[in-house]
Amino acid sequence: MNETDATLAADVLLAADLRGIDSHGVARLSGYVRLHENKRTNMKPNWKIIHETPSTATIDADNGLGLVVAPKAMEIAIAKAKNVGTGWVAIQNSNHFGIAAYHAMMALEHDMIGIAMTNASPLVAPTFSKERMLGTNPMCYVFPAGKYLPFVADMATSSAANGKLEIAQRTGKSIPKGWVQDADGNDSIDADELKKGGALLPLGSSNEAGHKGYALASVVDIFTAVLSGANYGPWVPPFVSFLDPVENLPGKGIGHFVGAMRVDAFRPVEEFKKNMDNWIERFKNAVPVDENKKIIIPGEPEFWEHEKRTKNGIPLNDKVVDDLKSLAKKFNLEF
Amino acid sequence: MNETDATLAADVLLAADLRGIDSHGVARLSGYVRLHENKRTNMKPNWKIIHETPSTATIDADNGLGLVVAPKAMEIAIAKAKNVGTGWVAIQNSNHFGIAAYHAMMALEHDMIGIAMTNASPLVAPTFSKERMLGTNPMCYVFPAGKYLPFVADMATSSAANGKLEIAQRTGKSIPKGWVQDADGNDSIDADELKKGGALLPLGSSNEAGHKGYALASVVDIFTAVLSGANYGPWVPPFVSFLDPVENLPGKGIGHFVGAMRVDAFRPVEEFKKNMDNWIERFKNAVPVDENKKIIIPGEPEFWEHEKRTKNGIPLNDKVVDDLKSLAKKFNLEF
Repeated sequence: MNETDATLAADVLLAADLRGIDSHGVARLSGYVRLHENKRTNMKPNWKIIHETPSTATIDADNGLGLVVAPKAMEIAIAKAKNVGTGWVAIQNSNHFGIAAYHAMMALEHDMIGIAMTNASPLVAPTFSKERMLGTNPMCYVFPAGKYLPFVADMATSSAANGKLEIAQRTGKSIPKGWVQDADGNDSIDADELKKGGALLPLGSSNEAGHKGYALASVVDIFTAVLSGANYGPWVPPFVSFLDPVENLPGKGIGHFVGAMRVDAFRPVEEFKKNMDNWIERFKNAVPVDENKKIIIPGEPEFWEHEKRTKNGIPLNDKVVDDLKSLAKKFNLEF
Repeated sequence: MNETDATLAADVLLAADLRGIDSHGVARLSGYVRLHENKRTNMKPNWKIIHETPSTATIDADNGLGLVVAPKAMEIAIAKAKNVGTGWVAIQNSNHFGIAAYHAMMALEHDMIGIAMTNASPLVAPTFSKERMLGTNPMCYVFPAGKYLPFVADMATSSAANGKLEIAQRTGKSIPKGWVQDADGNDSIDADELKKGGALLPLGSSNEAGHKGYALASVVDIFTAVLSGANYGPWVPPFVSFLDPVENLPGKGIGHFVGAMRVDAFRPVEEFKKNMDNWIERFKNAVPVDENKKIIIPGEPEFWEHEKRTKNGIPLNDKVVDDLKSLAKKFNLEF
């Protein structure tokens, strides 16, 4: 990979670690390396726009890393928004793109609203099914504010992302109802259920509202893959290198979808920011259930963590450190 | 109201009844009339575009009914999509717009993706709060298919819409955990909790994922109201005419947001539809938990109901019939 792309990919991974999303940071570096070693990704991709209009584009990522192509796609979306108000880019033939928030937040410095979605390998069962058909398919919406931190909602459309299960596995704790089902489709609170053939559940499950999470994950799958020409549903290639992709795929690679909307394509930026600040202030001061637990604005915890870790450094667990040491040794790099 | 607008408004209400969304159909007619009688809406609005770019517009609905202005806004979004690939319209100073699916589905005949959202008067408590701060704020995403029915996801971002509580109230049944909390913020399964000062809960609540539903409802509130200049959060005017709007509002009326994206702005329509059909077929054939309960594609039940009711008529409950009879009498119309 050339140095510019490598630096960009590293920046995306570090942004995850700084924001406290440890599951999407340097902990994944060895996974990307294994994908490369198994010839599952192209580190020197010749990505290109294969279709476009004034407000849209479709990119073939040439099997490159999403970490690199998604920020480039977002730049294109931003340029189109500058010209005609909004810009939307669908990406096919890509690989894992890290945290959605990185790409969506690129809109902020331009006083734009940012949107980013990706599909992912199937772990989630649709309502009434025991089959893994959808990824944790995150959607991210970012809005600039004035004196307050921007509003950043970056969320898996499943009840819980896999990372939360892994934390429960490490601590040996059971998990809340509504996160997973067993291989037969029964409710389960066992954090190991996925290893036994179970599935993650869509947002809202066990409240008789799982059909909504299933619909949201499907919307992400269609925007990112059916619209771009990538693989969708059960055909999304696995991230882990030891699983081979299935044969006769309906599309190319995995899919992403990013968007940028100029705030001043709708109203003057200062008016919008004044109302955003008022929105944020009012919600922060909503009457709490527990006086000691204030209402949180989406994105605040990640900004707080970013500030803390920028000051004090990023705590890495031993397994990740060992992993990075082996990589350094393998590639003759100083650790 | 002039005849064209009245016919359009009636069409939106009837579409709800035909699709089986009884809570949003003619059952609301007397509510709209009361809003009119209390001078809360303007039946002869001079709505206008107050800001625009090639792919966006902002409309001041002049306090008209959303039932009328939302389809006009969607027409503008579609026209912009024809020109530059996508079109997005934010609407301020409006009133209740009926079912979101009506507006989003207008995109289908143009082979476009349709999007519609609205905010609504506050009934939902954000995570950690006992205050009603958000409406049931629905988001609707519509994608055309080929030989199959279109994909139509139209959903409140709360665990359950108020209509589902009303059904439980009529039958005296308790409701699932995660739908409501009491006035102190405790879990409740009492369908009458809202009348006692409780609140609806965001999608995902009681699965430790309610912060996601809160984020989604907030995204809808910001797109529909902060971006358009309408009222947001606790300031959204109540639909019911017996509640007066609060003073010193930060915006005008309630807000909507609609969008249209040309499929062929991303890839040829036939390729997209072929993959959509494949997506739908694969999901319909996902392995079911119960052999007698097949996997449902979002929107299917409403299409089935539409077909049934178009053939057999719309069943109305006695209260609604009495309501319509009184209206007919009041306005000297034949019943």
